[in-house]
Amino acid sequence: MIDANLIEAENAARQADLAADYDALGARLARRGVDIEALTARAAGFGVAIPSWGTGTGGTRFARFPGEGEPTGIMDKLDDCGVIHRLTGATPRVSLHIPWDKADPALLREKAEELGLGFDAMNSNTFQDQPDQVRSYKFGSLSHTDAATRQQAIEHNLECIEIGQAIGSKALTVWIGDGSNFPGQTSLSRQFERYLDAMKAIYAGLPGDWRIFSEHKIYEPAFYSTVVQDWGTSLMIAQELGDRAQCLVDLGHHAPNVNIEMIVARLIRAGKLGGFHFNDSKYGDDDLDSGTIEPFRLFLVFNELVELEDTPGLNLAHMIDQSHNVTDPIESLIVSACEIQRAYVQASLVDRATLEGYRGENDALMAAATLRAAFRTDVEPILAMARLRAGAAIDPVSVYRASGYRARVALSRPKSTGGGGGIV
Amino acid sequence: MIDANLIEAENAARQADLAADYDALGARLARRGVDIEALTARAAGFGVAIPSWGTGTGGTRFARFPGEGEPTGIMDKLDDCGVIHRLTGATPRVSLHIPWDKADPALLREKAEELGLGFDAMNSNTFQDQPDQVRSYKFGSLSHTDAATRQQAIEHNLECIEIGQAIGSKALTVWIGDGSNFPGQTSLSRQFERYLDAMKAIYAGLPGDWRIFSEHKIYEPAFYSTVVQDWGTSLMIAQELGDRAQCLVDLGHHAPNVNIEMIVARLIRAGKLGGFHFNDSKYGDDDLDSGTIEPFRLFLVFNELVELEDTPGLNLAHMIDQSHNVTDPIESLIVSACEIQRAYVQASLVDRATLEGYRGENDALMAAATLRAAFRTDVEPILAMARLRAGAAIDPVSVYRASGYRARVALSRPKSTGGGGGIV
Amino acid sequence: MIDANLIEAENAARQADLAADYDALGARLARRGVDIEALTARAAGFGVAIPSWGTGTGGTRFARFPGEGEPTGIMDKLDDCGVIHRLTGATPRVSLHIPWDKADPALLREKAEELGLGFDAMNSNTFQDQPDQVRSYKFGSLSHTDAATRQQAIEHNLECIEIGQAIGSKALTVWIGDGSNFPGQTSLSRQFERYLDAMKAIYAGLPGDWRIFSEHKIYEPAFYSTVVQDWGTSLMIAQELGDRAQCLVDLGHHAPNVNIEMIVARLIRAGKLGGFHFNDSKYGDDDLDSGTIEPFRLFLVFNELVELEDTPGLNLAHMIDQSHNVTDPIESLIVSACEIQRAYVQASLVDRATLEGYRGENDALMAAATLRAAFRTDVEPILAMARLRAGAAIDPVSVYRASGYRARVALSRPKSTGGGGGIV
Amino acid sequence: MIDANLIEAENAARQADLAADYDALGARLARRGVDIEALTARAAGFGVAIPSWGTGTGGTRFARFPGEGEPTGIMDKLDDCGVIHRLTGATPRVSLHIPWDKADPALLREKAEELGLGFDAMNSNTFQDQPDQVRSYKFGSLSHTDAATRQQAIEHNLECIEIGQAIGSKALTVWIGDGSNFPGQTSLSRQFERYLDAMKAIYAGLPGDWRIFSEHKIYEPAFYSTVVQDWGTSLMIAQELGDRAQCLVDLGHHAPNVNIEMIVARLIRAGKLGGFHFNDSKYGDDDLDSGTIEPFRLFLVFNELVELEDTPGLNLAHMIDQSHNVTDPIESLIVSACEIQRAYVQASLVDRATLEGYRGENDALMAAATLRAAFRTDVEPILAMARLRAGAAIDPVSVYRASGYRARVALSRPKSTGGGGGIV
Repeated sequence: MIDANLIEAENAARQADLAADYDALGARLARRGVDIEALTARAAGFGVAIPSWGTGTGGTRFARFPGEGEPTGIMDKLDDCGVIHRLTGATPRVSLHIPWDKADPALLREKAEELGLGFDAMNSNTFQDQPDQVRSYKFGSLSHTDAATRQQAIEHNLECIEIGQAIGSKALTVWIGDGSNFPGQTSLSRQFERYLDAMKAIYAGLPGDWRIFSEHKIYEPAFYSTVVQDWGTSLMIAQELGDRAQCLVDLGHHAPNVNIEMIVARLIRAGKLGGFHFNDSKYGDDDLDSGTIEPFRLFLVFNELVELEDTPGLNLAHMIDQSHNVTDPIESLIVSACEIQRAYVQASLVDRATLEGYRGENDALMAAATLRAAFRTDVEPILAMARLRAGAAIDPVSVYRASGYRARVALSRPKSTGGGGGIV
Repeated sequence: MIDANLIEAENAARQADLAADYDALGARLARRGVDIEALTARAAGFGVAIPSWGTGTGGTRFARFPGEGEPTGIMDKLDDCGVIHRLTGATPRVSLHIPWDKADPALLREKAEELGLGFDAMNSNTFQDQPDQVRSYKFGSLSHTDAATRQQAIEHNLECIEIGQAIGSKALTVWIGDGSNFPGQTSLSRQFERYLDAMKAIYAGLPGDWRIFSEHKIYEPAFYSTVVQDWGTSLMIAQELGDRAQCLVDLGHHAPNVNIEMIVARLIRAGKLGGFHFNDSKYGDDDLDSGTIEPFRLFLVFNELVELEDTPGLNLAHMIDQSHNVTDPIESLIVSACEIQRAYVQASLVDRATLEGYRGENDALMAAATLRAAFRTDVEPILAMARLRAGAAIDPVSVYRASGYRARVALSRPKSTGGGGGIV
Repeated sequence: MIDANLIEAENAARQADLAADYDALGARLARRGVDIEALTARAAGFGVAIPSWGTGTGGTRFARFPGEGEPTGIMDKLDDCGVIHRLTGATPRVSLHIPWDKADPALLREKAEELGLGFDAMNSNTFQDQPDQVRSYKFGSLSHTDAATRQQAIEHNLECIEIGQAIGSKALTVWIGDGSNFPGQTSLSRQFERYLDAMKAIYAGLPGDWRIFSEHKIYEPAFYSTVVQDWGTSLMIAQELGDRAQCLVDLGHHAPNVNIEMIVARLIRAGKLGGFHFNDSKYGDDDLDSGTIEPFRLFLVFNELVELEDTPGLNLAHMIDQSHNVTDPIESLIVSACEIQRAYVQASLVDRATLEGYRGENDALMAAATLRAAFRTDVEPILAMARLRAGAAIDPVSVYRASGYRARVALSRPKSTGGGGGIV
Repeated sequence: MIDANLIEAENAARQADLAADYDALGARLARRGVDIEALTARAAGFGVAIPSWGTGTGGTRFARFPGEGEPTGIMDKLDDCGVIHRLTGATPRVSLHIPWDKADPALLREKAEELGLGFDAMNSNTFQDQPDQVRSYKFGSLSHTDAATRQQAIEHNLECIEIGQAIGSKALTVWIGDGSNFPGQTSLSRQFERYLDAMKAIYAGLPGDWRIFSEHKIYEPAFYSTVVQDWGTSLMIAQELGDRAQCLVDLGHHAPNVNIEMIVARLIRAGKLGGFHFNDSKYGDDDLDSGTIEPFRLFLVFNELVELEDTPGLNLAHMIDQSHNVTDPIESLIVSACEIQRAYVQASLVDRATLEGYRGENDALMAAATLRAAFRTDVEPILAMARLRAGAAIDPVSVYRASGYRARVALSRPKSTGGGGGIV
């Protein structure tokens, strides 16, 4: 997909500058008592999953403006994911979305192996009707008033598990759009009971070594109430289901102003944090590229994760979940993976002993300054060095552009039509 | 469309109860010094326009779940609007959306006349690409960096005016989705200059007896910045263009917590309030049915309009703009028209002399109580009596359901497919 | 305090009109199959507690503008509460705030009995330093880094229980301002552990027939993080402490746009809803008068309470918690009590069988209309009749004003000075 | 105040490391074609004013927790401002608040000169009543219903101008808390007319070389409506008053999610941007330390200012406006001045030619990356070098702490009492 020689040549042109920057940073960190190599090792060990649907151009309810060479199926999507991982070394897994990504499991495994990829959490879809679907999800799926519709949604989730087992996935993420658009439309309490019952049926079919993730979202597509509207409800669900049920936090699914890093800390305390959907947003669930709107907020989330990383049993599934409306999705995913990795490294840089000292003395000013000092450290040389050493690209976007990949696939992939939005 | 005999029969069954309720309310209002007949006359004189696109089922970026008998073109849409007006007597005009509603103007006029309808403001579309379109609006339309794209968008707006002239419209509403999804993507200042230049070109083509409405929206489909993001920018636009340029307020296009009734008062003061897009919302621009989420807020908007109704030159274009995702659009539009009319009548009920007395004494408690007393008055008998006298239905939804209209048109209109959202 | 003859005379002047309105409403409700007497009985049975501090004029961080005759101590406050209950018949209990309301329990009981009042939940204060206090709460109280400060705060809460036992209270409400103003200032996780430990110490001292209420608040006085920031954290606290720990929902303590009625439904499902602090707000925790900003939202909260009122074990403590900055606090509390009662009666009016029918058919439009029909019914005659029959005032504010109470107490109570805000 | 020898000694200990960091950064920037010396010169030329009230500990409506050695009057406050400027070299002016800072103008000038300080915009206060004040501002000031109260507020503002003239100020900032707490309490339109009339009276008294700044704020202390609620209203005011009237943007005074950098761009376009009140916030108008919550947002504001810095007539008054509740105010002001300067230097670093190239091609990804590349550059060596060369401190907070200043003034300044908040 991406010629190894190209990567090597491009890296060669940047290597001397990188070495200089890396050394200068290393010296500066050493003065603070920080070993740059330890950080580079952490960067190298970090990975975040790519959602298969992220490789296509997203849209809004108003329109979708596709780009050139849109992937036409899961095999194309895996190719694109392979490119991202080849260039960043930071995206070793792909998360599938059923039914769109259905394919022969053997072929999926083979293709992934070829690309150096594995499979992350499976994602079911009951927020959209499929052409061959017997019952509509217009008024809900797992929480529908009609038992047969709920059963159809349960079976779809069980099928997702089955597919996942065949390809080596170990988790199922359940996000539904169920809710209501009018006060009164639904019984808030009974709708939740129906949801819990349906989730219990899915949980009963969960293999012993799997986890199920409950994902909350304050609104959209339902605009007055949403069954799993916040982390409190998600926590109740995970508690009700059992040990293998955990909560997944999507950074864009909260009310304005909400302090997400506190939710992270609380869910870890409850033993119920399962993972993340990374993205950024300014207004609603805008699904913008990670770290592009409020990079400090992303850092603060990772600050909690690093502070609490030794919590027994903590095992997080990191995934990107973005809608790429005006960029080449591959480029956005490359940059986003690097931004997430950046936040992780910056958080790893926090001088925690010093921080705790200030906290103990209620020295708010210096405690905050300690955190900011880590955030404002430009760790780009660390990220780039980790990539270089892994055989990936010092500057992944430049190499991607130089590779001509998009133009190449545009030749073989049919032109996508626009239309009025759509998430697939 | 709706049999007059059916309306009459249904009204007959409700007339005695209505008379009793109307008399009881009249007596109660008389005690407050209010003449119920004057209110009923105001109700009868009130009208709000229907957007042609509101007759179809809306959707979100996740999905669209169409209903039975969706209108397939502007003639179907006009039929549906005719039904709404026939039953409510409160929706005498239709607002068209180009290019979707393009048709022979003579036929449009004839059809509308037959249905007792007129045409309200024209609406252009440059937020979505059409199959035959030369240049894409992916990166903007009237504010695009490319002059030819801007020119294409200008010409589309001029065409909307031309069509509007042929059917008797007197205004053009311009709403664009232009903006950006990333900090840095666009120059906030130069993008605005380009927009202003394009609007001036459109304004130059505006007939002398027309108005142009600038409509602001805080976000969506652009998620980091939007060219016409708030009423302040909309005001600058209207000031820059000239006397026939005014601002249109869509109730759902504001930041959380914003006091919309203040914006109404300010724009009237500036001589720049042109009209409204009515809807309701809880989270973002949810486009829910008017008066269903925060009815008191709708009342407060009308409270300003009634308080300032004698402002010289005030001439408001009232239009509904909603997305009907889970209801029959005709029913939602019927109910919404009535809710908007209700707020107007409630606001007309405010004892303004008493209110001003309390305000003059800074008697906050009684001033507020005076407003609430009007709001909590159940004016349904007034609305129903206005409908009865106009030959419309006392209970429009019941009559609509009894008429079997939807099932009837479902026979002749082809089945709509779902798909991933879309506003058309 | 308020002359019974005055009440009687004022009622006499309004009685005929009330009878006419009550009969007309009764007839209209009867047509819907609703017995007005049953509703009047429910209204009569409803009570909400008054917070002692609500009788004084509140303020902001910018200023406090006291009124005439401000209460100078708990006995004055009880007098004012007595007036409110005398006129509304709807506020039978008072909620005390320690240390401000400390007094000889025997005198408190005697005074309350004389006024026909009881005592509701006790409220501790660890968000402000008292003159004689050994350790400061500047950097927290129950979650402070310093063990001795935490112990001081624990002991204060235990003292509140002790005082409460002496006067017949059965609950303790714990709200603290602990949190941080800077990212990094405090460990979000360890601060929460310290809080939990402190609460366990208080819980250990809770009498067997008492409950402890955990109250969340998204922000203020802490502006970056708050220990008990949302209902999810409050739920974790209540679960951790035990059966007698429950959550208290203050309507003003949530992020923008949050759907509070869903939280109500969820906490009832978890068996953890303990009660409410009623108020209204537009922007932050504005503590405005109940039902004055978004009356429909208050109705929707009561809609959940009425729908779920038969839930086994449900036992709610209803309390007003408002800041009266520009009104006579007695008048605001009178009006607020009536607005809360109004929402309860409107919610009791919902035709639940019909509603469930529509919900079962996913008839969103008619389900919503059913709810709105109840909300827009003007139940004032029911509330007034309940007051009349209880010997309270048909029009409580008019009678209060006619009584000259405020001017009378202003003679004996020293003039209050303004100053820069303050909640006491 | 701060011993020059101490500064020199502290700087000496850090100078070698700074030189190394500065050189490494210089080399890295040179590779991008950026001259570090040009940036250091810009940093050196940057200044932001200190508000006199910022030197005292702030509070909330719940409490105020004063620190040691609180300033007791304007002379103490000037001393504290002198310390800040001495250590940062970035705060050359002080902004006074009348009536609290009233003093003999000759003494003020003398004191300021001694400390190397000048005077920035004057600030009036009509949101709080003073002990000797004839009419109360409880129900408003410049927009009060009572003409005599408005006149009192006008005269206070004219007095502020008079004082300002005597000390060399050239601007008056008008911020008022006027508004309402209840829908209906006030006429939104007439209240605004009264405000405009009062402002015109003040404007009539404005010296020819002065400017008047109108400052908007969405809410607080008024909680339902605020007369100058947003920038649109502020723009109308500035337009109505005349050329010397401009708008001041306080970063914390907006609705949630609002894009402030767009407002900056719009007001510059309208020729009406006068200056800033810098601070940061997460929820409401939290008045937290600049750059501590969302540093990227601060950068984006400066990105507009730098992009548009050559706009003819642009002349900005930069001021900090924060409430320091849990830190030593001097330390917070030191850090905040540096953070604001940091954002300015980072924005100055943006490669604008490259950025414009990407924008012209709608290369959203690379345009955004260009901006972020500037933001993530750690410009601390530039700021520190600018300080060193100006004779200020490389590490101002360390030197401040080493100086023992706070403990020293605590000996001579009387202990402040806490109390319930207050802004003074």
